[in-house]
Amino acid sequence: MAIDFKKELETAARNMIFVHDPDLLIKIIVRMVVDKVKVEHASILLFKPERQAYVLTVSGGSLAKKVPIGLACFDKDDSLIRFFRERDNRLLFNNEALTVENIQNALKNPDTKERLKSLMGDVLYQMGLLETVTCVPSYYRDELLGILLLGKKKNGSKISIQEQDFFVALASNMSMAIRNAYLFKELKSELDKKHQLFMRTTIALVAAIEAKDNYTHGHTTRVTNLSIEIAKRLAQKNKKIVDNKFLENLHIASLLHDVGKIGVPEQILNKRGSLTIGERNKIKKHPEIGVNILRPIKELEHSLVGIKYHHERPDGRGYPEGLKGEQIPLIASIISVADSYDAMTSDRPYRTALYKDDAVKEIGKLSNLQFSSRVTEVFLELCQEGKI
Amino acid sequence: MAIDFKKELETAARNMIFVHDPDLLIKIIVRMVVDKVKVEHASILLFKPERQAYVLTVSGGSLAKKVPIGLACFDKDDSLIRFFRERDNRLLFNNEALTVENIQNALKNPDTKERLKSLMGDVLYQMGLLETVTCVPSYYRDELLGILLLGKKKNGSKISIQEQDFFVALASNMSMAIRNAYLFKELKSELDKKHQLFMRTTIALVAAIEAKDNYTHGHTTRVTNLSIEIAKRLAQKNKKIVDNKFLENLHIASLLHDVGKIGVPEQILNKRGSLTIGERNKIKKHPEIGVNILRPIKELEHSLVGIKYHHERPDGRGYPEGLKGEQIPLIASIISVADSYDAMTSDRPYRTALYKDDAVKEIGKLSNLQFSSRVTEVFLELCQEGKI
Repeated sequence: MAIDFKKELETAARNMIFVHDPDLLIKIIVRMVVDKVKVEHASILLFKPERQAYVLTVSGGSLAKKVPIGLACFDKDDSLIRFFRERDNRLLFNNEALTVENIQNALKNPDTKERLKSLMGDVLYQMGLLETVTCVPSYYRDELLGILLLGKKKNGSKISIQEQDFFVALASNMSMAIRNAYLFKELKSELDKKHQLFMRTTIALVAAIEAKDNYTHGHTTRVTNLSIEIAKRLAQKNKKIVDNKFLENLHIASLLHDVGKIGVPEQILNKRGSLTIGERNKIKKHPEIGVNILRPIKELEHSLVGIKYHHERPDGRGYPEGLKGEQIPLIASIISVADSYDAMTSDRPYRTALYKDDAVKEIGKLSNLQFSSRVTEVFLELCQEGKI
Repeated sequence: MAIDFKKELETAARNMIFVHDPDLLIKIIVRMVVDKVKVEHASILLFKPERQAYVLTVSGGSLAKKVPIGLACFDKDDSLIRFFRERDNRLLFNNEALTVENIQNALKNPDTKERLKSLMGDVLYQMGLLETVTCVPSYYRDELLGILLLGKKKNGSKISIQEQDFFVALASNMSMAIRNAYLFKELKSELDKKHQLFMRTTIALVAAIEAKDNYTHGHTTRVTNLSIEIAKRLAQKNKKIVDNKFLENLHIASLLHDVGKIGVPEQILNKRGSLTIGERNKIKKHPEIGVNILRPIKELEHSLVGIKYHHERPDGRGYPEGLKGEQIPLIASIISVADSYDAMTSDRPYRTALYKDDAVKEIGKLSNLQFSSRVTEVFLELCQEGKI
């Protein structure tokens, strides 16, 4: 192995720790070894905690063709695995790389115990099947993480001591990188779980609050889905305005847009007849009540805008502040269209639902008056395509 | 540097990636270098994103006494930093370690530009102040992460080429480990933020739900605090039963213990006179309603038990299932005591609050009847110590 290859490989090995996907990491390593060291194949048997087994990844040579990737799976009790898992056996090959010669020498040695001879016979047979001349095990705190399996060199020469040393260092870096990748994976999955916990708990509590209002069953879910649909289409037109952060804020805002209704007495929410002006004004307080409930939560800052202004209108006749046109934030304008469309197409105490087509027409007519023209345009587009 | 030290250091360097606290990492590295390589001091100037400056950590020698750790702070425009940040200058020392000799040679070279000579003069002066003979910069994607500064060897010999190579490799591993540590720190802080978001949103929504009941203002917060106090004291007695996971589940369960009251009509919750049996039965449904609201959330599984059974009694006269004695889960028994104590010491529509002492006595009397004796014992202990 030329010295410049060695440097290149070392740099690559060091950079391994930034690959946080264990499977990708393995693929990169075996491909790199085959390319640079010119062995017939390089393979890794990697322990998969979720399967409690060692899975083979192969690069190069006829072995890659024979063994479909991911299919070859070795049990913890398999001879090859057992040999490396038993601490004492490591002394036979000086804790580092095990070669076919190592085994042949140990088999010839009269001091080798019969039980071990039989195990080594199996190992030799398996190495033959795997076309492997050198095995480099990789441990983390005495646990066997994986085994690097190397085929013959293409030019027929033996793997040199220097090259073996390099492989031992590589296997050691590999074990570190894999551990690191697993730690990242765990942390990311914890983060994901916490996000799910937050979203699901919010959804459950909002649904419970919504259940107080006899006429809005499922309203929040529908408004949320519709808002997200509209925003995704807007994102296709302009990624700068609607990015992933915006979508997340909108998701939360639409889930919580009516949370302030909890501050409106049940008898007003569920009143069958028409409302008095006083009652209507109490209902109109719900965006501000919602904001008051959630204001202490700094992380919800950008969602609060959507909750507060989802009843504003471009013509300035909305509430709570009577904002006009471009003063109304996009997040609120999206919820406004979704909220109104769902209200129009649902039965209410004081009227039955509109037909879908009539509701769409109505929203189109109110573009720039009640609804943001930019949002209305996208909403109508989605309707025409039959996506709403 | 003896070969076994080198191996030891290499292993240590590799293990650096598991130290996820950048400051601790730096301390470990400089101490290790001073101990093993016998230099007068080893120091690191590490870039701190939050301060936008390079902060000095020193180990060993008179320098450690002169420079209080963390106080020496180098600006991005400081000569020493600027020298290493300018890409072209790296050619002067072959991209790796910069020694006093490197600078002296460059200063003597007639081809060296005047501007650079002046900068190098400053660098030489600063290296003198820092008692440094070799600087090893550490980059990540062309950004200067830090500089390893080495004092003279204690035995007076020069740092060998072999040792210099080792320091360059160390600095490279270091930069990787630091980047990795920052990535972990970011991910952990994201996880922490998400947890806060979940807790705060739950608290806000629960407070809003609680506001529907005129008589229970602040009840949830008090019950939560008291439950946690009791559990922490139980943990001091038996860590196996009350671990961190239990505390987290209890925290969530106590926050949500009355969430099911949202399913009880406002006029029953706020009724001034005494309740009919029918009304009382409706109120008794609240633990089950709470569980129904939250059941879809798999992560809350262990908290749900606390919500469902917080009105059970050891004598079997509780609800909803009439569980007896040890059948009642500890998490529910804790909430039961906290909940009852807070109810006794608060005004209710049908009676005024008890005095604190009377409430404590009452709970003591009901040990093993209404309340778990194990929890009552701890509760009384905390009361005697004036902690409740």
